[in-house]
Parts: sequence; C-alpha cells; structure tokens
Amino acid sequence: MVKVCLLGTGGMMPLPNRYLTSLLVATSGKLLLIDCGEGTQVTMKSLGWGFKAIECICFTHYHADHIAGLPGLLLTIGNSGKIDPLTLIGPAGLKKVVEGLTVISPNLPFEIKFIEILEEQEVSLQIAEFEINTLNLQHGIQCLGYSISINRRRKFNLLLAEEKKIPKKIWNRLQRGESVIAEGTLFTPDMVLGEDRKGLKICYCTDTRPIEEIIPFVKEADLFICEGMYGSDEYLIKAKEYRHMLFSEAANLSKAAKVKELWLTHYSPSLKDPENYLEVAKNIFTPTVLGEDRMTKELNFEE
Amino acid sequence: MVKVCLLGTGGMMPLPNRYLTSLLVATSGKLLLIDCGEGTQVTMKSLGWGFKAIECICFTHYHADHIAGLPGLLLTIGNSGKIDPLTLIGPAGLKKVVEGLTVISPNLPFEIKFIEILEEQEVSLQIAEFEINTLNLQHGIQCLGYSISINRRRKFNLLLAEEKKIPKKIWNRLQRGESVIAEGTLFTPDMVLGEDRKGLKICYCTDTRPIEEIIPFVKEADLFICEGMYGSDEYLIKAKEYRHMLFSEAANLSKAAKVKELWLTHYSPSLKDPENYLEVAKNIFTPTVLGEDRMTKELNFEE
Repeated sequence: MVKVCLLGTGGMMPLPNRYLTSLLVATSGKLLLIDCGEGTQVTMKSLGWGFKAIECICFTHYHADHIAGLPGLLLTIGNSGKIDPLTLIGPAGLKKVVEGLTVISPNLPFEIKFIEILEEQEVSLQIAEFEINTLNLQHGIQCLGYSISINRRRKFNLLLAEEKKIPKKIWNRLQRGESVIAEGTLFTPDMVLGEDRKGLKICYCTDTRPIEEIIPFVKEADLFICEGMYGSDEYLIKAKEYRHMLFSEAANLSKAAKVKELWLTHYSPSLKDPENYLEVAKNIFTPTVLGEDRMTKELNFEE
Repeated sequence: MVKVCLLGTGGMMPLPNRYLTSLLVATSGKLLLIDCGEGTQVTMKSLGWGFKAIECICFTHYHADHIAGLPGLLLTIGNSGKIDPLTLIGPAGLKKVVEGLTVISPNLPFEIKFIEILEEQEVSLQIAEFEINTLNLQHGIQCLGYSISINRRRKFNLLLAEEKKIPKKIWNRLQRGESVIAEGTLFTPDMVLGEDRKGLKICYCTDTRPIEEIIPFVKEADLFICEGMYGSDEYLIKAKEYRHMLFSEAANLSKAAKVKELWLTHYSPSLKDPENYLEVAKNIFTPTVLGEDRMTKELNFEE
C-alpha cells in the first residue's frame, strides 16, 4: 500500500488558506517528498506522518515557492532524530543552491547526498522503495517532472522451489533477486519467482507548459498530479508567457496518457475559486479532481 | 500614532497554530519589520497592512526561525510594486547570509541596502520615521536587541517667530530643524521650536539570556516585546543551556526597566499552554500580556 498526500495546492506564494504545492509519498514506513516551499513543514506537521522517515526530497526547480522551506525542514528533520543520510535530487546547481540556503541551518546531524540531474539527462534511480524517473519539462529554468514507481517483488513459488529441489538455505537470497551458486550449481531467481506483479506509479509535473514528452512519461499512471495554474482557457497567453498550464491542458495530457486519475494543483494566487473551472477539465477528462491542501489517498496494489 | 503587530509568537519552528515570532511596526504609512521566519509573509498577508511600504527589515540573528522567510518575502515585496530601496539591518555576516538565501529569489525590482552591526558595536540609525538602536544580546551567536523610537518634531511656535521677526520664507526650514542664514543673520531652529515632545519607544529582545544591559536599553519603553521561551521556573537549566529566558526573567527585566507593558513571545514548541504560566510573570510585573499571533496595538503620542 502506498499513501500520498498533496501537502498544498498553491503556486507562487504561500497564502493564509493555501499552502504551497508539495507531495508526500509514504510506503513501507519510508517517506519521499517532492518540493518544499515556505510552510511545507507546517502542513506536514498537521498531517502527522512524521519527519524522521524522509529518505529523499526531490526538487522540480529552484524558484522560491518550491524550495524556500528547505532550511527549516532540515532542522526539523534533525530534531526528529534522523541520523542516516538524506538524499536530495534536483536539476543542475542543487548543491550550490542548498549550500546557499543552509547558511542558516548548519550542523545537521545527518549527511546530505546530492544527485544533480543535468539538462540533457533523464535518469532512473532507486532510493529505498522508490523508483524515481525524471523528465525535463518546459519552464523558464530547468525544471523536472517526476515519476515515482513503487514496484513489487515477484512472489516466491514454493511448489517450483520444491519441485526443482532448490536448497532451502538459498531461498531467501533467490527471493531477493540474487543468483546463487550452491552445491556446485547456479540457481537464478527466475527459477523460483512467479509472474511480474504490477506496481504503482505516481507522477508529478509542475511547473511547465504541456509538452508532448509528458504523455509517455506519465502513461497509465495510477495518479497524475499536475499543475493547473489557470482555470479559464482565457489565460492561454499568460500561461504561455509564464510557462504554466491551464486546467484544460492538464486534462488533455491526462486523457492522452490514459492516467487513472488527475489531481490539479499549483493554483495561481489570482485563482480564488478553482471549483468554478473544474467542469472545464472534467469535460475533457472525467477522473479529474481538484487538489486541496492535505488531500490524501491510499493506493493499493492489484491482487 | 504608531501601530504594532506581533505577527507570530513561536520559537524554533513554525507550528500549525503558531507562526514564528516577528514584529511589524507601522507609522506615517511606513513599515518596519523585525525578523522574518518561515511563514512570516503568510501572517502578514492575513494582517492586511500590505508589503510595499516596508522600509526596513531588522534581523536579530541568523537562526532559521528568524530569517528563513526572507527570500519568499522579498519576492512578495517585489510583486507589491516596490521599487525604492529596502534596508536590511543585522549582525555581522548579513550580506553573506542574504546572498546565500536569495539564490532562489534573484532579480528583485528594488535595491537592497545592507547595514551590518559588528559584535562590539551598538548603533543608532534613522531609517524613514524609525530611530533604530541596537544592543548585543547573549545567545549562542551574535544576536541583536532592537529599540525602535518614533520621535516627534518640536512644535513650531508662531508667536515666537513673529516676535523675533524671523522672515516667513525660512519658517519651513527652521521647522524641519535646519539652521538658515537669511538677510545676513543666522537663524537656528531653537529660536522658533517649542519644548521637546515625548515620542514612542518599542523594544524587542529575542533570543537571549536576561543580561543586565537590557535594563537601560529598554528603560521606560512604551512596549517591550521580550522572549519567554519557557513558562515554568523549572526550566532554568535548559534556559541557561540554550541561552533563552523564562517568563519570570522577562518580567524581572520589565520591572527593573519600568516599561509600560510587556508582551511575552517566542514560546518553545513544548510550551503548549503559555496561559498556565502567565501568573508567574504577572506576580512580578503586573502589566504582562501573553503574546498571541497577530496581536495588534495602537500607541498614541502623549498630548
């Protein structure tokens, strides 16, 4: 089971009734955070999933509304008792940006590991339970979309193992995917593992224009969290100028990619009542949901 | 008239129900801010006094809970239409800290002027309507107390001016405090200005141990905003270790300095119910008030 929480839904600046857009993903007791604006630690505190289990923070880009909360969050993570390393992932320049911000939060009790994704790169990484894939989006500066997959191990087939007389003492290692030589014979995981099992895929794209590359990247995602800076199609010129998306553009991407559900987020401060424009998106892609601060969902693996 | 607003009352980290300690002072359409933690711009937004009129931001020190909100606030000030310079005042290292933080908020539409106060310095500055005095406090790192005085001009005495046959065309300049040579004679402001008139004095001391130097510094302040990290006297050892104050220590300083009113603030996150300890302070200094987020007061000049 995977739990996700959209910690906030605002873009540009935090507002009294709207925290900045940020996503928390939890599985097997581990947490992954995408983006950390001013106030993200406050809405995380309200949520109550804790801070110590954060394995990784992914940054889309380095505009203040996506990263200004980092130094405060790092101190709070430090106070939570975490001592094992924290991985930060983001566009080129990550280390320099974080070194700038952490002049006010020095002497943390854990190590920070930096993974910088260059402009021409698209990477696939495994951090704890999270398979993280990145896509370069189209914003004023380098900006990354993230696809977080939580994969499942293939089931151990006891009957097969017994039938093939595989020594019991190596079952565990085969189950974990290792190949093992025992009693002079090579045993491979394929010999005892069942069918591939479908994992879960959660995608997160903000801030960007709706470039075509997003469609294969988010294809058939179980949940697609996508920016909808402007509700009305009348804002197209503004959306193009500031490299953001309309509700309708996010819906069109979702339809083309056949995702299961779309959550809109990263509303402009000028968009006071996003609900006025929900129908615009739903007319294109029915399973569209308006993101709300601390909206939570449990995603379950298919049996 | 001077308005003050205690924007938050928390110390260490912002909480869902408690913003970080910060003070906004308004007079003659100008604003002065002391400290800017994560979320300060949000509570300022709730308050509704605007952002454009900020002349000056004073920093006590560079722990994250006192400055992490700066890059976001600078962007919001920029969006408010401000184009005239903004003055930042703080302990040594200010420029370096701000340069670190503003890697995520570059290209502001206004100039930033830096005034760094060195460890051995105690200064008096006039920024717009605000006379700003500093005191070096006792915290783990260099930390400044601030005294903000809003002074009043002496009244122009029309009768005196006429009696002394002072040329009308120089009245304005004399009223503004200039000395003027006219018709071969030196005229000085003293010749036409009445008695000194009492201004207003607002003092702000956090984070610190209750050092003796605070007493003359805050003497007879109209309002003393002082940290009370811990309510119970049982926390004395902790207060000494982390260089903070107890409610009773803030009250003793206020009594000795004969301030008019004390507002306690900068509560520890562990201090869930400060009201349980108000009596401890009131028993020492009756005009003690428990600070609350966005608590506002109008201070009027004596007639």
